[in-house]
Amino acid sequence: MTGTKDKPENTGSRALAYYGTDKLDINQPRLPESVDQIRRFWLTPEVEEALRDHCLVSSIAHVRMLAETGIVPKPVAQKVEEALVAILNECRDKICLLTAMDADISQSITRRLTELVGDLAPVVDIARSPNDLIAVNIRLYLRQAVIEMFAKLLKIRGLLLNLAKRDLDAPMPGHTHMQPACAILLSHFWLANEARFARDFDRLIDLYKRLNLSPLGACSLAGTAKPIDRQMTALELGFDGLVENSIDAVSDRDFVIEFASFAAICGVHYSQLASELLLWATQEFGFVRLPRALTIKSLNMPHKRNPELLELLRARASMFGGRLGEFLSQLKGLPVSYTGDLKECMPGLLDVVENLRFVTEVAATLLPAFKFNLERMLEQAHADLTNASMAADYLIERGATLEKAREVVEGLGDYCKKRHKQLSDLTLSEWQQFSPAFSDDIYSHLQVESSVEALTSRGGTATASVMFALAEARKLFEADEKRLPPLAAQMIEGAPKAAAS
Amino acid sequence: MTGTKDKPENTGSRALAYYGTDKLDINQPRLPESVDQIRRFWLTPEVEEALRDHCLVSSIAHVRMLAETGIVPKPVAQKVEEALVAILNECRDKICLLTAMDADISQSITRRLTELVGDLAPVVDIARSPNDLIAVNIRLYLRQAVIEMFAKLLKIRGLLLNLAKRDLDAPMPGHTHMQPACAILLSHFWLANEARFARDFDRLIDLYKRLNLSPLGACSLAGTAKPIDRQMTALELGFDGLVENSIDAVSDRDFVIEFASFAAICGVHYSQLASELLLWATQEFGFVRLPRALTIKSLNMPHKRNPELLELLRARASMFGGRLGEFLSQLKGLPVSYTGDLKECMPGLLDVVENLRFVTEVAATLLPAFKFNLERMLEQAHADLTNASMAADYLIERGATLEKAREVVEGLGDYCKKRHKQLSDLTLSEWQQFSPAFSDDIYSHLQVESSVEALTSRGGTATASVMFALAEARKLFEADEKRLPPLAAQMIEGAPKAAAS
Amino acid sequence: MTGTKDKPENTGSRALAYYGTDKLDINQPRLPESVDQIRRFWLTPEVEEALRDHCLVSSIAHVRMLAETGIVPKPVAQKVEEALVAILNECRDKICLLTAMDADISQSITRRLTELVGDLAPVVDIARSPNDLIAVNIRLYLRQAVIEMFAKLLKIRGLLLNLAKRDLDAPMPGHTHMQPACAILLSHFWLANEARFARDFDRLIDLYKRLNLSPLGACSLAGTAKPIDRQMTALELGFDGLVENSIDAVSDRDFVIEFASFAAICGVHYSQLASELLLWATQEFGFVRLPRALTIKSLNMPHKRNPELLELLRARASMFGGRLGEFLSQLKGLPVSYTGDLKECMPGLLDVVENLRFVTEVAATLLPAFKFNLERMLEQAHADLTNASMAADYLIERGATLEKAREVVEGLGDYCKKRHKQLSDLTLSEWQQFSPAFSDDIYSHLQVESSVEALTSRGGTATASVMFALAEARKLFEADEKRLPPLAAQMIEGAPKAAAS
Amino acid sequence: MTGTKDKPENTGSRALAYYGTDKLDINQPRLPESVDQIRRFWLTPEVEEALRDHCLVSSIAHVRMLAETGIVPKPVAQKVEEALVAILNECRDKICLLTAMDADISQSITRRLTELVGDLAPVVDIARSPNDLIAVNIRLYLRQAVIEMFAKLLKIRGLLLNLAKRDLDAPMPGHTHMQPACAILLSHFWLANEARFARDFDRLIDLYKRLNLSPLGACSLAGTAKPIDRQMTALELGFDGLVENSIDAVSDRDFVIEFASFAAICGVHYSQLASELLLWATQEFGFVRLPRALTIKSLNMPHKRNPELLELLRARASMFGGRLGEFLSQLKGLPVSYTGDLKECMPGLLDVVENLRFVTEVAATLLPAFKFNLERMLEQAHADLTNASMAADYLIERGATLEKAREVVEGLGDYCKKRHKQLSDLTLSEWQQFSPAFSDDIYSHLQVESSVEALTSRGGTATASVMFALAEARKLFEADEKRLPPLAAQMIEGAPKAAAS
Repeated sequence: MTGTKDKPENTGSRALAYYGTDKLDINQPRLPESVDQIRRFWLTPEVEEALRDHCLVSSIAHVRMLAETGIVPKPVAQKVEEALVAILNECRDKICLLTAMDADISQSITRRLTELVGDLAPVVDIARSPNDLIAVNIRLYLRQAVIEMFAKLLKIRGLLLNLAKRDLDAPMPGHTHMQPACAILLSHFWLANEARFARDFDRLIDLYKRLNLSPLGACSLAGTAKPIDRQMTALELGFDGLVENSIDAVSDRDFVIEFASFAAICGVHYSQLASELLLWATQEFGFVRLPRALTIKSLNMPHKRNPELLELLRARASMFGGRLGEFLSQLKGLPVSYTGDLKECMPGLLDVVENLRFVTEVAATLLPAFKFNLERMLEQAHADLTNASMAADYLIERGATLEKAREVVEGLGDYCKKRHKQLSDLTLSEWQQFSPAFSDDIYSHLQVESSVEALTSRGGTATASVMFALAEARKLFEADEKRLPPLAAQMIEGAPKAAAS
Repeated sequence: MTGTKDKPENTGSRALAYYGTDKLDINQPRLPESVDQIRRFWLTPEVEEALRDHCLVSSIAHVRMLAETGIVPKPVAQKVEEALVAILNECRDKICLLTAMDADISQSITRRLTELVGDLAPVVDIARSPNDLIAVNIRLYLRQAVIEMFAKLLKIRGLLLNLAKRDLDAPMPGHTHMQPACAILLSHFWLANEARFARDFDRLIDLYKRLNLSPLGACSLAGTAKPIDRQMTALELGFDGLVENSIDAVSDRDFVIEFASFAAICGVHYSQLASELLLWATQEFGFVRLPRALTIKSLNMPHKRNPELLELLRARASMFGGRLGEFLSQLKGLPVSYTGDLKECMPGLLDVVENLRFVTEVAATLLPAFKFNLERMLEQAHADLTNASMAADYLIERGATLEKAREVVEGLGDYCKKRHKQLSDLTLSEWQQFSPAFSDDIYSHLQVESSVEALTSRGGTATASVMFALAEARKLFEADEKRLPPLAAQMIEGAPKAAAS
Repeated sequence: MTGTKDKPENTGSRALAYYGTDKLDINQPRLPESVDQIRRFWLTPEVEEALRDHCLVSSIAHVRMLAETGIVPKPVAQKVEEALVAILNECRDKICLLTAMDADISQSITRRLTELVGDLAPVVDIARSPNDLIAVNIRLYLRQAVIEMFAKLLKIRGLLLNLAKRDLDAPMPGHTHMQPACAILLSHFWLANEARFARDFDRLIDLYKRLNLSPLGACSLAGTAKPIDRQMTALELGFDGLVENSIDAVSDRDFVIEFASFAAICGVHYSQLASELLLWATQEFGFVRLPRALTIKSLNMPHKRNPELLELLRARASMFGGRLGEFLSQLKGLPVSYTGDLKECMPGLLDVVENLRFVTEVAATLLPAFKFNLERMLEQAHADLTNASMAADYLIERGATLEKAREVVEGLGDYCKKRHKQLSDLTLSEWQQFSPAFSDDIYSHLQVESSVEALTSRGGTATASVMFALAEARKLFEADEKRLPPLAAQMIEGAPKAAAS
Repeated sequence: MTGTKDKPENTGSRALAYYGTDKLDINQPRLPESVDQIRRFWLTPEVEEALRDHCLVSSIAHVRMLAETGIVPKPVAQKVEEALVAILNECRDKICLLTAMDADISQSITRRLTELVGDLAPVVDIARSPNDLIAVNIRLYLRQAVIEMFAKLLKIRGLLLNLAKRDLDAPMPGHTHMQPACAILLSHFWLANEARFARDFDRLIDLYKRLNLSPLGACSLAGTAKPIDRQMTALELGFDGLVENSIDAVSDRDFVIEFASFAAICGVHYSQLASELLLWATQEFGFVRLPRALTIKSLNMPHKRNPELLELLRARASMFGGRLGEFLSQLKGLPVSYTGDLKECMPGLLDVVENLRFVTEVAATLLPAFKFNLERMLEQAHADLTNASMAADYLIERGATLEKAREVVEGLGDYCKKRHKQLSDLTLSEWQQFSPAFSDDIYSHLQVESSVEALTSRGGTATASVMFALAEARKLFEADEKRLPPLAAQMIEGAPKAAAS
């Protein structure tokens, strides 16, 4: 027990009284007696709202197909389609379709449809079942989210490329194991981050092709005896193909896992970026701060402003992994067919989609807003980072073994630390205490800028390497814009502008 | 690519047009420019609403203490307290406190308080910080949820004990590896489940003692110079002690993990219970069905009714584990102090609390409603389950080695399977084909009821053993009611009734 | 407490004595005092062994490049390369390279290299750091695992295609919500499963392209001043390109998450397949059994054989998701650079690779071994599944509303259940009790085979649809073989045979 | 695609050749044809070894009970017991019991037992099944691990208490949101950490009581007809009671989840402690460093030593959460009975136990080894932390409103930052620029030491408060030693010494 020894007595407490005096009666039943009513607690309204338009649009496509194939007379189909369009427009006008009477959004639609077309309403359910309907609606919902993420990732990448261009002349200490290792350009850091989001974009392109396939027409699990045309509904709904097998079509939720996995990797990228910047924003590092408007004032400590948006980016990433675990566990051990369990991913999927959208917007808001203290960063980059390696190389080039060179330089490092000096502060005689091989020209190796500039290997941090990499990254960015699926390209505007800047 | 070869062309699709023609502009900023406004997107209103009463009540306790210790003059404190009570009452009247202007519920309260008492409002923030405030509010919120779960677990256990009493004379096949192993009593099955929820109750009692401690007075992270009385606020709020260390008090979230872990184990119990009953409810098993009102009618297949509530119980369990993973990942690698990350668990915690409440109510609704086909269960229990073991024991008692006995009985089993017979159908000469040791009295070993009755060991399935176990379980149930923490005992009524029935 | 009331006293127990009498001394330090020795506990030998060949081969490529670019004199490089090859051959001869003296495999190699070439050994470390070395070695290790999984997935898909061909004439009940819905072909079930593994293959192809890129030459995190040729080492090692940015190159572990996510989805597919077959293998379903050699004999119950391999397939899937969660949590909140945390994924990654390999082999062993009871399956398929829908359609075609038709058929269903009859057993007058619209020709709608055959829609379960789908699946299989990356195609043989059969 | 545009051609690579030329043949079967042999791949030898002694000891207890109850003649039982003891001793002599012929350790024991006592060997299996056997063995294994963790947690807590005593006079900056908030004592930080491990200890005590119950005698799932005495075997094996219900006894794995959850919370505590110290060990913070022997030398950068053991503590925590997720997912959706899935947790459980042991030992090694730079910490604590709050309080006490006071002090902060001054550097006229209320006595409020000393509230950071808290923590430590279960108390020595120091 972690509490105190001298416990207050647990009686006579008074503030508690304000909670009210209702008691919990464990014998009273809480849920209604029928499953249709229980569904109102069980299905979250947000989920039903999110599926609404997709349910209406997929129904329109279905009804058109029924007419085209002669399953339903054209005039009948026409009336039903018009009514569905009318409902869609009513919803646009903010009229809420879902009522306390409906078990789910599909029932809401049927109810309203019956009000509009009477006996014709059941037409929408011909050669269709709730199983292929929910499958197609989830895919339509997620496709829209994916298309939005295409745009958002391009936005983030565009911002990072702009920062990489801006900060080409900003040296700073590069760390490994959180210990200063050698000087790098801030631009190089931005490009590392851009590369990560470029991979995320690549993953999104890949998952889109497995997502954008139509399950409609699979019916319950085995197809239908009606002469439906699955390719026609696929075409109407912008799908690139079919989920062929009807059992697979109603029960596949791979795309949910795959999207959550994509989101989780993205989340790691945001989390690490935030974590690094939180470190840089400490008073001890002093590399960066956020403008007042993007920090939160401490209530009690007037000198403090807290970078809570960065903490949000760091923490919220964990949600995606949690939901991913939820989905995997939900699907594990189910039979290979449709079961009610397959609907249970929806609240989690919405959560993933909405939070990924939100953290991406937060990142897009923060990235251009950071104020860097370039002077402080340069000063810290001076701090003997690359110089030690340079000194070792200096000795090796003059005949020392690697082992010997390291030993000498380690000695120099200790010497400096004790005296709070930097290597560049040492006199020649101090250098020579450690090795007679050092002579005057050692000083020409010891500037930050030149040390950054030394690292000219492909992908390294020298300005030339970074400029080459930036040009490559821009090319990839432009190529990626062209890889957008037609449907996405059609819905997104503005991307080229981001790249052009 | 899993789609079809002959793809529909991705142009000319028409139903899509109904989505509307708005484009996504990636250059347009989405979030407002200031963090206070961003917080409105970031903080979920449900969370703020859930914390509202706790925030008000803990503020009342705090203000009383400020008066009692002389930090604030009594008349001032009195006015502020009265205003806080007034706000509490306004909220009871369904007036929504949170407005679009407030960053969080605490700001809502301050805003309203300022309307009511003007310059006195800041008094509530003396010797308190948002860090200890959120810590105490989460604990108060979760304590209430824990107390409700005490009641709900007693309810579930009471229902299971009633079923165990009802089904003492219902033999059925017991399975291991999903293969029939030997006959058991249905009552024995209920008691196995009750034992699980009894352990859950035990865990809840344990976590309550680590949860019900007051962090209030820790302020930002280091305490305060004001002469506060932490024990007094603890007493006012019904806490059993203090979280002593101020750094620990503001940053400890162990109790969130611990509650999620409790919920996840509970979830496994519900999931397994549902899974077993879904199996029994298959047409092939045919042991049980739910009344019409608790199943969902198949839209397309008029002969079907689907036990979707059981599927919900099976699937939703996965959410608790996912959230648990989220919390662990959120806390991992943070510094040992207060950071904004610590608030990020709230949406997940609400999700856990509300879903645990919901699945428990679903279970409580379903448990008494199942209709068992006792005849079918008995018939299947006949099916040579225990009998094979009995036959083996019969031989061993008459001198056979274990190995030999098993071999004989395996032969008998194969013989029966091929002929679609049961052991009890065999003639004596058929028995003796396999071993001359069999004689007339073999038949007296071969009834289901007696085979159940044979398993008389402690905790076994014989009626006497089950009755003993039921009596023990009732005693534990009654003892557990007495173990309820005073605050819980005070708030719950009706428990004894459940036990008495 | 879940234990018994009448506790045994906890003294005088005797069997415990056999554990020995050593006490745990909490004051004694357990770990050695230096980190190099602690590393021996910390690094798992399996991990070091798994990386050994990759570390040697990447070192060979690196040394060749150093010679080619003139960084190291060719004769020196030649000697070092020869020594590295010699070590590789020693390892082939099962000589264990790792000793208790080495902190990790890289140190083992340096130690042995020093024994062979003396002062030349440090040459391998020029323009390379442990950070890009471990990054390249993990990628080489995982690439090999991915190539093996290409082969294994083709094997599984080939087996499923063969089963789909074999079982084209095997009708069985198809279930939704675990309730019989309508008759399907067993072949249709196999194709649903094949479609899942085809998607897994597609995902593997996608992740391979992000995995098979070289980080070598990134050095610690910022590149090197030496005139290395990163594309040359990439070429030597069979990579398709570079991880351009040096910070990204040493710190990217997306591919670990992505592979674990791939494995987790695969795991779900195995788990669901196993789960369905466990259900079918219950005595109550009686659709399938495994040969004796692939089940485990019950020790106590001679009549039982347990399908434990299927249980393994169902359960082990959970490990992949757990490891995925581990990786995500490990990476969350790290800075954007190299840290020691990035090595910590290795034991988990090995675990994922080895278990995925194992469960795939188990599945490949089991799939051809199942013995189906086609008669029983047909019989159960008769059980009024599709017939009810057929009867409803019959009425609608004759003018009934959907609602009316459903009502009639539900009544018929109840009538049959009570009398233990099937629809096909009813006399015409019984039919007509429910609706006068029924006449003689109703019987021609009511056979299982024809009901299966009715579901002719694209992707449906009618023989023609399934045969079309099978042909499509074969085409995709063959196309997928051609999509194998060159390196994989080169290493895999036998795939065409699997497809051809 | 993240690779480079100008890809190297993927042919002609040479280093690859050294991998050898074996091809993967996808048609060749890999696994043996029988499940008994497959089990050798499937069961990990480490798991079997870990269970060995527990399997032998529980068998001894079982055989004694069989004799005592007359189920087996005493001389027979005696011979079998002697043989089991002999095997136990053979194993102590490092003779490996498990051979390639045995499916699992239980089969190894039976094989060896048969060699020693011939036909008597099957006696051990009377009135016992593999199901209750594995259940009891896992509990015995885990109980031993729990007892060891009791000792290890006491060790860690003892170390932290010693540090808290040592560092009572070490002021340092306390951070919230990673921004300096106010001065605290280092001792206060240690006590916050000790409080966390004290809660872990409390949780361990709680789970022990649910773990230390005997399932033995439950047999397959329903008990036995033999007149066994379950309480006698429980007593022999040191259990505190029975898992009463036989179905529950064989299928309950709550304790595995509960232990993993305990480990995961512990892991979070280690991870956060490590994370904080990694931050303090950065060059920028400069608060702490580890001795050379406990850091790893950078290969390329002679000036660097990397605190990899701290990174290990930070990262490895994630494994516990991953395994916890695995266990939850494995158990989810199983039927309520024994299935093979229940064995699948064993490799994960060993992993959790061994890694928890290892990270605890790492922490115990590191804690006393840190070298703090108290001067630097004090200097940073000076940096205007508490002073700003103090200045605000100063104004409020002199009549300013809270809002006004905050505004003034925020202005002061900005003024100082721009001039790189601290509040204590300001002249009185500078103070008065911001508010005329400041006078001479402001300086007496502005020292670090006194500001620490001001925070005298219960649990605050003033020396007196910390000393009180330290005394309380010691009392709790001593009380906790007395709470050790008898079996644990018996096996642990040295605890009091840790507390006494």
